[in-house]
Amino acid sequence: MSTQAFCRKMKDASQKRGSNIVLALDVVSEDSNTLLSRSVSILRAAAPYVCAIKVNRQLVLPLGLYHGVKKILLLAETLGLPTIMDCKVNDIGSTNREIVNHYYRAGFDAVTASPFVGWVDGLQPVFELAREKEKGVILLVYMSHRGAVEGYGQEVIDAETGRRRRFYQLFAEKALRWVADGVVVGATNPEIIREVRGLVMERVPIYSSGIGVQGGDLQSCVAAGTDYLIVGRSIVLADDPAKAAEDFKKIASVGLKR
Amino acid sequence: MSTQAFCRKMKDASQKRGSNIVLALDVVSEDSNTLLSRSVSILRAAAPYVCAIKVNRQLVLPLGLYHGVKKILLLAETLGLPTIMDCKVNDIGSTNREIVNHYYRAGFDAVTASPFVGWVDGLQPVFELAREKEKGVILLVYMSHRGAVEGYGQEVIDAETGRRRRFYQLFAEKALRWVADGVVVGATNPEIIREVRGLVMERVPIYSSGIGVQGGDLQSCVAAGTDYLIVGRSIVLADDPAKAAEDFKKIASVGLKR
Repeated sequence: MSTQAFCRKMKDASQKRGSNIVLALDVVSEDSNTLLSRSVSILRAAAPYVCAIKVNRQLVLPLGLYHGVKKILLLAETLGLPTIMDCKVNDIGSTNREIVNHYYRAGFDAVTASPFVGWVDGLQPVFELAREKEKGVILLVYMSHRGAVEGYGQEVIDAETGRRRRFYQLFAEKALRWVADGVVVGATNPEIIREVRGLVMERVPIYSSGIGVQGGDLQSCVAAGTDYLIVGRSIVLADDPAKAAEDFKKIASVGLKR
Repeated sequence: MSTQAFCRKMKDASQKRGSNIVLALDVVSEDSNTLLSRSVSILRAAAPYVCAIKVNRQLVLPLGLYHGVKKILLLAETLGLPTIMDCKVNDIGSTNREIVNHYYRAGFDAVTASPFVGWVDGLQPVFELAREKEKGVILLVYMSHRGAVEGYGQEVIDAETGRRRRFYQLFAEKALRWVADGVVVGATNPEIIREVRGLVMERVPIYSSGIGVQGGDLQSCVAAGTDYLIVGRSIVLADDPAKAAEDFKKIASVGLKR
């Protein structure tokens, strides 16, 4: 049984499209019919320029996982795009397993998870389920918002060495040890991207979110070693989402040829 | 505008019922119709003996927030029981606000949130929304599973004092500072319940989950100062859920008269 089926799936999709842009389908509307139709049209428009899509709970809660979201997942599959559910699971193991099982069953290829809940009775059941089903688990290592410094950036004492570290450094090491299929490092901190790249020894792909509206700069991320660039509102809220996605793809691919 | 409407609502419900048991409606079934009907019948049976219910994503994902879950919320309202959504929000602020807004709109009285994401662009928008809508926010301070030691129990350097602390101690202090409507401390660690009670200066109610199946002992929690006891599988999976809920209520109320 393959351990990293999702990593290969991402690599294939990225090479086929010549793009490492992940479209975060963060569409907002008070009306759930509008939400679904807008999500579908943006997905269709941006599809030629992106290598995967990421869905958050802003879609799952109003559309329903097995209703509207499932339609989006079927369309993504038809378009040849892997799908990531950004559920950031952080519960006890049995609950995490139930949650993630629903997302996998609905059709998602990967989920995001918080290493903060630890391994035993925490994320271990999630990784086991992912391996059984040949799906992916992407760990949050450093987030893009300012408050991240209070948690991910917190100074800690490494229990193994007694040394002072930052929490995200321990998370990066866990990602390597737990054989995660990816790590998320916010685009707003290119220096942390570079550092995490070293800690995971280039063996775990890096996803960077927060590009554009949140202030992250695409070229700095690429230079720092990000593998996949997650772009949401800068495409979703653009007058011409296809054009916006194409522009991001072009800028990113210049960096990739370094 | 009241800042702590949810705290009062919980206190009223608890006094009226003579119970401080929160029913975690962690029903499991592959079939969503069975899931809904079983949830409804357990809720009806246990209602006389509990003061609130807690719902997790095991119900939201298969039943749909605005479909099956909403029916459960309407029933809980009819039965006079406050409702808590255990969503453990831990995303960036704008996404947290969207997620929590959906839960409040569907009818939940309170949500759970992870202080690990910090305040600025993290939980601040959640607390602001809660105050606008007179709803509650309950912070996770220490969870009930073994892996919790890797995160909540992690030794950290307090940035303000330079002292060595445990992460949950900082979280308890944040709960007090952010005027949280409750803190969750796992029932498996009564000594941490006692300590957190001191840190929040008895001003923030303590909720303890993990009683029964997960190994937490109800009487030890009550002795340590827990205000509300969250019981799930020990009631939900019992042959007679009403009898199980009544037994828990009785044992807990002996402790409360201390």
